[in-house]
Amino acid sequence: MNVPDSIKVAWAYADKHKNQFVSELEEVVKQPSISAQNVGLKECAELVRKKMSELGIKTRLIPIPEAPSIVYGEISGEKNAKTLVIYNHYDVQPVEPLNEWKSDPFKPVIKNGRIYGRGVGDDKGELISRFNAVESLLNTQGSIKPNVKWIVEGEEEVGSPHFHSFVIKNKSMLRGDGCLWEEGDRTASGTSEIHLGVKGLLYVEYSLKVGAKDQHSMYGPITPNPAWRLVNLLKTIRSENGKILIGGFNDDVAKPTPEELRLMKRNEFSTEKLRKALQIDYLLAEKSDADTMTKLLYSPTANIAGFGSGYLGQGSKTIVPKEAFVKMDFRLVANMRANDILAKLRKHMETHGFSDVKLTIHSKEDPAKTPLDSHIAQIMIECSTMAEGKRPNVWPTIPGTGPLSLFTKTLGLPTAMGLGVNYAGAGFHAPNEHVVLDYYHRGIKQLICLFSLF
Amino acid sequence: MNVPDSIKVAWAYADKHKNQFVSELEEVVKQPSISAQNVGLKECAELVRKKMSELGIKTRLIPIPEAPSIVYGEISGEKNAKTLVIYNHYDVQPVEPLNEWKSDPFKPVIKNGRIYGRGVGDDKGELISRFNAVESLLNTQGSIKPNVKWIVEGEEEVGSPHFHSFVIKNKSMLRGDGCLWEEGDRTASGTSEIHLGVKGLLYVEYSLKVGAKDQHSMYGPITPNPAWRLVNLLKTIRSENGKILIGGFNDDVAKPTPEELRLMKRNEFSTEKLRKALQIDYLLAEKSDADTMTKLLYSPTANIAGFGSGYLGQGSKTIVPKEAFVKMDFRLVANMRANDILAKLRKHMETHGFSDVKLTIHSKEDPAKTPLDSHIAQIMIECSTMAEGKRPNVWPTIPGTGPLSLFTKTLGLPTAMGLGVNYAGAGFHAPNEHVVLDYYHRGIKQLICLFSLF
Repeated sequence: MNVPDSIKVAWAYADKHKNQFVSELEEVVKQPSISAQNVGLKECAELVRKKMSELGIKTRLIPIPEAPSIVYGEISGEKNAKTLVIYNHYDVQPVEPLNEWKSDPFKPVIKNGRIYGRGVGDDKGELISRFNAVESLLNTQGSIKPNVKWIVEGEEEVGSPHFHSFVIKNKSMLRGDGCLWEEGDRTASGTSEIHLGVKGLLYVEYSLKVGAKDQHSMYGPITPNPAWRLVNLLKTIRSENGKILIGGFNDDVAKPTPEELRLMKRNEFSTEKLRKALQIDYLLAEKSDADTMTKLLYSPTANIAGFGSGYLGQGSKTIVPKEAFVKMDFRLVANMRANDILAKLRKHMETHGFSDVKLTIHSKEDPAKTPLDSHIAQIMIECSTMAEGKRPNVWPTIPGTGPLSLFTKTLGLPTAMGLGVNYAGAGFHAPNEHVVLDYYHRGIKQLICLFSLF
Repeated sequence: MNVPDSIKVAWAYADKHKNQFVSELEEVVKQPSISAQNVGLKECAELVRKKMSELGIKTRLIPIPEAPSIVYGEISGEKNAKTLVIYNHYDVQPVEPLNEWKSDPFKPVIKNGRIYGRGVGDDKGELISRFNAVESLLNTQGSIKPNVKWIVEGEEEVGSPHFHSFVIKNKSMLRGDGCLWEEGDRTASGTSEIHLGVKGLLYVEYSLKVGAKDQHSMYGPITPNPAWRLVNLLKTIRSENGKILIGGFNDDVAKPTPEELRLMKRNEFSTEKLRKALQIDYLLAEKSDADTMTKLLYSPTANIAGFGSGYLGQGSKTIVPKEAFVKMDFRLVANMRANDILAKLRKHMETHGFSDVKLTIHSKEDPAKTPLDSHIAQIMIECSTMAEGKRPNVWPTIPGTGPLSLFTKTLGLPTAMGLGVNYAGAGFHAPNEHVVLDYYHRGIKQLICLFSLF
């Protein structure tokens, strides 16, 4: 692939400024910003604003009532350029359990080619590497190609409770041609990955309480048992072989297109490697790795995430439990809708006579999918190939969930994930979160391409 | 009912010595004897031995290796008399939670006609009231009618781990014509009750572990879910309407005889009163109270006592659990056998393809039943009627379980429960355990009849 000279020059700049770029990351990591504990958010927002401004980006803090401000920046690109929306966040996960960290989470340490600290990847590493790419172009070319609208929020790690209404209120401000999501991704061995969608999620809890206290189980013959009741409900929801029995549940499930199947076959994926990484005895695998991956990405689920009732200690206690609950997450694939599945679940419970069971909704998220032929997808694949000298794995969706439909549906923005510093093993959210410095610098090169070609 | 003069005289003695009898109870209660915590057992065994000896009973301590001694006493009755075996225990439950006691558990307090303290009922109150009855007869008549073999063990509250082998080893020593079990019983309003049997119990735990850690539920489509697996097992074990589906489970279930049905119809029982006492929203009641009681006493169960898997905290966590367990107690009615049901359960699991699920046995106890026309049952009914001026409720079985089959099967001893100080509300095992003094003294009168008539 031919690499334009302007990109080569910017890459050279980035190579020369490796140490400076890592120092900038360290500076931001040193500023704690734990949204779950309301620690350092104001200071971190101000630091990010300052760094964006210093790059020459028109930046402002957008106050959110009773919540950390959003840092918002805009860059004007070339004449008639397309507009790239970028989403990042400056808050980080809590650091507990602290005793499992080998170094201070807020004093970044470099060791064996890796940098350790809370947020070195998620999401400060991604954010600062994007700054570094912009700097590399501005200091060599004097400009970047696309217009950029940059949102950096401070509540992502607590579920972005104010972000939805922010987006709704600022629809016109956030108009654009494509969106780069918060983080990139690589396999454990370093191959870049690009993801074009997410699954949706409906997380519910079934619960039933029949009395004020657990009963001696000698009363079993005449005492209602809420655990049995929920088992009976569950068996109407999913068959033994995994088929979901809620009426109409699968009506809108989108099957993989032949193009998507071809795409996925080109990707690196090993069922056995995944099994080992998950430390699990076996997987419900198909005959080929490709089929297993298709099952993983294209199957909706009804997963029991928790079942609690009665005596859970060692040994035995002879009681009929007074209550029982089951936590269940339904993963939804394109083109299912969380509200539609919820309505079908309610109807199912009513039809099957389980109106006594209380249904609590913990979260709802629609799936999202960006077409492979969208501008953002095509350019990101090109950028990754150009910087890495190798085609990335391109996935139509990840098996997980994120608030992407807010961008794809509400804003009508094709949105993709990729081009960054994260890799399988970086330990996002866990102790000893780290980033491989080589991936950090290669991520900057990918991003230089994006800011040159989009 | 005609009360023999000899009994009237002994009753008068008991009336005259009420204060002394309560003091004797207090003396024994003051000596802590918590088997679960190995507190005061040796001292209490010696105290009980001393009190028995002072009554004129031939008494000795039978050492049990690495366990508290059994106090064993024998009384010779009249010539050609039948032999009554008596079972009691001198150990008590722990007193925790101590802050819920209104007085010191080991400093008995009398208030509003009740005596409070750990063990005032279970089982020291029952034991000392039996001593008091023997004393009343020995000090008025100079003798009692039956030969007595008296066992007072020190590990009942921790499940009598050495008692089974003690009984097996001493089969010939323990031969007799009937056995009086450890405690009497009364309804909440004070009507005496006599129980002629117990249910059996098979307590098992199903468990399944599929990996080293919980998985992110995005892997749901290809990850085995042990909670679903146990739900699928459970639905093969019991139908929605409560029918137990294990092959041959009901083969040996004894239906109530017409005589038992007639017997139970004469008893006081109110489903609604029980429901209120249990603080439960509703019971799975039959049309009549008698039918509900029959259901309670004659139905075996497969009860979910605990179901634990995955995330059990507040809100949501998107995981596929690494493991799941279900604790289940089967209550067994006459003539089921715990080992037989266990074998059938194992076969059921194998037949239905659940060999991956681990089965742990927590406890096994056969049901026991003493015929209504046995000498012990008939005499106890007579004694209760004589002392109370009113026929007791006579139940063919209790809905609960106890190690009675050790006596009924291993020793061939018809065994019954009744004639004592306990009543519904006495709070055995709970804080503020107490005994109504009126019931204590009436219990002694019943027991005087037993030691006069058996």
